[in-house]
Amino acid sequence: MYATVMHAPGDVRYENVDDPKILKPTDAIIKLSATCICGSDLWPYRGHNKFDAPLHMGHEYCGVVVEVGSEVRSVRPGQFVVGSFCLSDNTCPHCQYGFQSSCVQREIMTGAQAPYARVPLADGTLVATQEMPDDAMIGHMLAVSDVLGTGWFGAVAADVREGGTVVVVGDGAVGLMGVMAAQQMGAGRIIAMSRHDSRTALAREFGATDIVAARGEDGIGEVLELTDGVGADSVIEAVGMEQSMAQAVGVCRPGGSIGYVGVPHGVSFDGLQLFLRQQRMLGGPAPVRRFLPDLMNRVLEGRIAPGKVFDQVLPIAEVAEGYKAMDERRAIKTMLRVDG
Amino acid sequence: MYATVMHAPGDVRYENVDDPKILKPTDAIIKLSATCICGSDLWPYRGHNKFDAPLHMGHEYCGVVVEVGSEVRSVRPGQFVVGSFCLSDNTCPHCQYGFQSSCVQREIMTGAQAPYARVPLADGTLVATQEMPDDAMIGHMLAVSDVLGTGWFGAVAADVREGGTVVVVGDGAVGLMGVMAAQQMGAGRIIAMSRHDSRTALAREFGATDIVAARGEDGIGEVLELTDGVGADSVIEAVGMEQSMAQAVGVCRPGGSIGYVGVPHGVSFDGLQLFLRQQRMLGGPAPVRRFLPDLMNRVLEGRIAPGKVFDQVLPIAEVAEGYKAMDERRAIKTMLRVDG
Repeated sequence: MYATVMHAPGDVRYENVDDPKILKPTDAIIKLSATCICGSDLWPYRGHNKFDAPLHMGHEYCGVVVEVGSEVRSVRPGQFVVGSFCLSDNTCPHCQYGFQSSCVQREIMTGAQAPYARVPLADGTLVATQEMPDDAMIGHMLAVSDVLGTGWFGAVAADVREGGTVVVVGDGAVGLMGVMAAQQMGAGRIIAMSRHDSRTALAREFGATDIVAARGEDGIGEVLELTDGVGADSVIEAVGMEQSMAQAVGVCRPGGSIGYVGVPHGVSFDGLQLFLRQQRMLGGPAPVRRFLPDLMNRVLEGRIAPGKVFDQVLPIAEVAEGYKAMDERRAIKTMLRVDG
Repeated sequence: MYATVMHAPGDVRYENVDDPKILKPTDAIIKLSATCICGSDLWPYRGHNKFDAPLHMGHEYCGVVVEVGSEVRSVRPGQFVVGSFCLSDNTCPHCQYGFQSSCVQREIMTGAQAPYARVPLADGTLVATQEMPDDAMIGHMLAVSDVLGTGWFGAVAADVREGGTVVVVGDGAVGLMGVMAAQQMGAGRIIAMSRHDSRTALAREFGATDIVAARGEDGIGEVLELTDGVGADSVIEAVGMEQSMAQAVGVCRPGGSIGYVGVPHGVSFDGLQLFLRQQRMLGGPAPVRRFLPDLMNRVLEGRIAPGKVFDQVLPIAEVAEGYKAMDERRAIKTMLRVDG
């Protein structure tokens, strides 16, 4: 089959690769209904993450099971499934504790920007729907796999509560999903730090009550002004840069919580400063599996439409253009259609 | 009067100073029933914290109100009171949120290693008892002011829950109080990392179920072995050094919580490592005021006896010897008697 391979920074190709097959009895093979490009795929694309061998790209996925290994019990061919970008057995102590992204058997999904993909640890990773969803649902279901699950975890980690004040730092796809999550959790006020018109509009549609375009000290000052000098109860950091983390710390009240879900690049903390700010911090790769059943239900019941975050849809053969569009910020997030 | 003044590292004197007096209408003057030396007093004593002018030492206190400013409403002369080392108005948004140690009017108590002391923000800081406690209660009430309150906050910040597994890093007075707090909160297992016989014995008396004497990788390995490779749900870090923080991070399970209450000295965190460990972190100067009424009740009802942490009692005139004994680890914590 053809699939997406990154050969070097900036060099993504849709090219011939071996068909995926069952390698372990706990594997499943799925036929992708759709797939997409993640903000984190841009790290190697932009040369920020080094790699030596070509990368089989893609870790966000939903689709139909076509084959399962001999030990797979919870899904069967013909079922529509969504899985997390973190593969987990969902039985180890870390999984049972709700941190499937620290599963003792954890692997990270790869190769999902393709018509077919192998999903290891299928029983612990995949969640099947009762019926085949309508085509119109595919984008929303796909979003659950990583971008919504990650934004959701950001809101959980930031301890978003009913009536609370939430700041979302970062107006990329994850930040926008953080806005949606905070809205679903009943936040009273959601301040999105955003300066791009299309993203600001989506943030408002997803539930943002206030937009702060300023950054740095000015941005912090505006948020403090909006909150009577107090700061936010909860802050979702969805970027992972030093500047964005400083922004998050700067707008969070003492005793408030920061959920940071942007993979930190070059971020460090001074222990004493962290201590004096008295902010609760929790980050990490999102344990999306914990949230999957609930989020899939919310989508199927029409309560949320996270697929709106895909503002570009391309046939998968044009995946290289998708990377380019996201890199150049022409697209927030690109969905790849997998037809035939 | 005579009071405790630090002139230089290692140079603590009990010497003549001006009597404290009401400076603001929100002040109170108390006659100390007893006072004590804090582990944090050893930072300047050991030359780790620079200071230019002589320091009027002492921030842990309980005693009897002798005079109040014209605006003080909640305490009156003749009442026995305990206060926090952090002075707060207890009305600002941070106080109302339970983070009195970030009060917008916050000051840090000083000059309490003396027979009399001025307590600013008396209404927001002091909590009075209904009756005058017995002499036997004084040490226990004194401990509430900082060392127990700080250990308690460590346990709260570490999200200690009924039945949970707790590790306490540091067997100083705060760590031992952390053990007591975890026991009171119903922890199922309390692993104290301790290597000094007298401290280990107290840790056991306060509720430790397991003692790990090893440090570094060995210590982490032992804790992991005790927890079936999982790590602890909650970790109280009560030292503030790089090594102890690494210990705390090393023994905490993914999704677990670290409450760090040792003032960090030379501690820094790499953002990506913190992210990958997925641990909830909260530290800071303890908002003792939040816990004061509850902790004073526990003492008065005889449910806890935190004053046992004072293993040396000296007349305040011998305060210099108290510093020396704590510095040389001959004493865990020194109480100073204030007679006449």
